[in-house]
Amino acid sequence: MLTKNQIKIIASLGQKKQRLKHRLFRVEGKKAVDEFLKSHFKLHGIYALTRGDYNVPSEKFYTVTEPELKKMSALTTPQQVVAVFEIPNEEKVATDTLILALDAIRDPGNLGTIIRLCDWFGIEHLVCSETTVDCYNPKVVQATMGSLTRVNVRYLNLETFLKTTKVQKLGAFMDGHSIYEKVLPKQGILIMGNEANGISPEIEVLIENRLGIPHFSKHQETESLNVATATAILLSEFKRRG
Amino acid sequence: MLTKNQIKIIASLGQKKQRLKHRLFRVEGKKAVDEFLKSHFKLHGIYALTRGDYNVPSEKFYTVTEPELKKMSALTTPQQVVAVFEIPNEEKVATDTLILALDAIRDPGNLGTIIRLCDWFGIEHLVCSETTVDCYNPKVVQATMGSLTRVNVRYLNLETFLKTTKVQKLGAFMDGHSIYEKVLPKQGILIMGNEANGISPEIEVLIENRLGIPHFSKHQETESLNVATATAILLSEFKRRG
Repeated sequence: MLTKNQIKIIASLGQKKQRLKHRLFRVEGKKAVDEFLKSHFKLHGIYALTRGDYNVPSEKFYTVTEPELKKMSALTTPQQVVAVFEIPNEEKVATDTLILALDAIRDPGNLGTIIRLCDWFGIEHLVCSETTVDCYNPKVVQATMGSLTRVNVRYLNLETFLKTTKVQKLGAFMDGHSIYEKVLPKQGILIMGNEANGISPEIEVLIENRLGIPHFSKHQETESLNVATATAILLSEFKRRG
Repeated sequence: MLTKNQIKIIASLGQKKQRLKHRLFRVEGKKAVDEFLKSHFKLHGIYALTRGDYNVPSEKFYTVTEPELKKMSALTTPQQVVAVFEIPNEEKVATDTLILALDAIRDPGNLGTIIRLCDWFGIEHLVCSETTVDCYNPKVVQATMGSLTRVNVRYLNLETFLKTTKVQKLGAFMDGHSIYEKVLPKQGILIMGNEANGISPEIEVLIENRLGIPHFSKHQETESLNVATATAILLSEFKRRG
């Protein structure tokens, strides 16, 4: 039986502070839970309306009622199952490849989409500034569709990391030089900036190669691309020329 | 003075049925309202907390109270101003260029992002199946960031349109041939399918050229790209090779 206190803890994992305290995060819905169960993530517990086909030790499985599930879930319409996994220790970042770095990405949907892009384009290491939204935020986990199990995400002081890592730093800028015409390195760090403000000044001074995506609009008002779609285009260019 | 009935009508424009009945839609927030005012869209009325610098005839401007604005807005925190514009008559689709066609895109955020991409890549005509989410849905208008003023969106029976239009039809498929290796035409119709089900069978049989985006992941579980990011990558490839 699940105690009231256990339910309270699982519900509290919607908050970053509580996730860090317990080193646990939530995954919702059968498809996502199945992907995390197959991965290297360590299961803390499954909380579902029915036993189903979950092949996990009985001490880690709890049958719950609909009101209990609703209390634990972030979703208006909970999806039959909530699972809790341990937040893994962050892996060392390998620098002999292309790394993606995020400077203060705030929108959970954008981070989720970017993690899916990393998975698609075989980017193994995603480095995030401490000001970037937490990848174990329930909305991010939801948006990654399981890709979070295949990408190493590391939070760190981005300025220090860039200063101490001896590979080429490339950044996406509105006035950057056309990505289509640039020679792109096989190893390096590609930096994407905040949704509203772009790359911050203290990071900008560390960038050696300013990339841009040309626009083809005849209207001068055409403004900017969403950061996730810009990331898609840039990663496609890097990998196409591989 | 704004009557209760006027407020009720503006509030009702959150529903597609009411938008079609009145041929009106809502735009929220100063930045977006300014973009629509500069465009070819015809203003019905502006409803704002203060007169501000809106250069519009006084009979089209209404100062409203915060509770009135809240009633008219779809946002939890309304942004000072709501404007109502007329839904324009749909323009004829020019087929001597690259056209984007959407087959049952359901998510307002995805449609908004795709309209921004059309604007960026100079795609003037976006053709949508009648099953695609309405582009005058408040969430779509919000997500387009003004790009809706620079892209002609037309809703039609996609199957009939494709059957009667004599240009190459290209479609995005999971198992399509690598876009990086394909010869791409300068004019044609690029079709993107539904978020969950892809391109529908009755549309698929009309497609002559099946395009895919190669993935670079070493994990076989890596599944699919979001439709908006896939559109970004495909449009970038078409335009890069221009």
